[in-house]
Amino acid sequence: MIKIICLGKLKKQYLYEFINDYKKRIEKYHKINIIELKDYENKEKETEEILKYYNSNEFNIVMAIEGKKISSEKFAKLINDTFINYSTITFIIGSSNGVSEKIKEKANLNLSFSDNTFPHGIFRGILLEQIYRAFKINNNEIYHK
Amino acid sequence: MIKIICLGKLKKQYLYEFINDYKKRIEKYHKINIIELKDYENKEKETEEILKYYNSNEFNIVMAIEGKKISSEKFAKLINDTFINYSTITFIIGSSNGVSEKIKEKANLNLSFSDNTFPHGIFRGILLEQIYRAFKINNNEIYHK
Repeated sequence: MIKIICLGKLKKQYLYEFINDYKKRIEKYHKINIIELKDYENKEKETEEILKYYNSNEFNIVMAIEGKKISSEKFAKLINDTFINYSTITFIIGSSNGVSEKIKEKANLNLSFSDNTFPHGIFRGILLEQIYRAFKINNNEIYHK
Repeated sequence: MIKIICLGKLKKQYLYEFINDYKKRIEKYHKINIIELKDYENKEKETEEILKYYNSNEFNIVMAIEGKKISSEKFAKLINDTFINYSTITFIIGSSNGVSEKIKEKANLNLSFSDNTFPHGIFRGILLEQIYRAFKINNNEIYHK
């Protein structure tokens, strides 16, 4: 399963449509569960909430601006290889100030898509698109638009 | 002026809304002109078309995956500093295979937001959001969501 833990409601209808579009596309390849938590604006409370959904038996990836940067092809390989040993890959997207150090240290991997900061809603869409792209790459299907 | 030369129609209504949202937000700070060219699927024809809108007196930035990577703060500074000497900053977003070498060599700067590949429509939205963010940063306005 692909599990996504994210914080804060989406503020625009087009973001819901963007995210639902890619969620549906991913579902053709794999089970996906998006867990949207409240944006607590309190790092300790937020960490506590995330930890309720955190499972050390899963492969946990924190999305962090300073994390490791890899190409879409290497991201696809990471997903493919991780599913050999893990039944669930969990992605954690923090709120505007990022995920707490405590969770970053616990996670298997800190990953970054950019040196740039994006709004969390748009970032959620970007992550889903990259996951979808990964499944397309891993299935040798053409996808470059 | 901010000028954006991009290729190919947007395929989803939510992408139009995403892009129009940020276009309107940018317009509060600066004039912006989005030039959407046909996706020619022929690199030579595409280059020819882009060059019709290319002006060497403007500061031309090609968005290229292998380009220079900078943070949102440095991107904001780049925009601020460039407008001292140039009246127009032009961003060129290629189609799925990127912009031709000819245009990359002509441009003032090749810039990258990520090692990952994104669909051109989503990338258009990402660029607009970063430009909007730059104006917010340059105006010392809070924006981190």
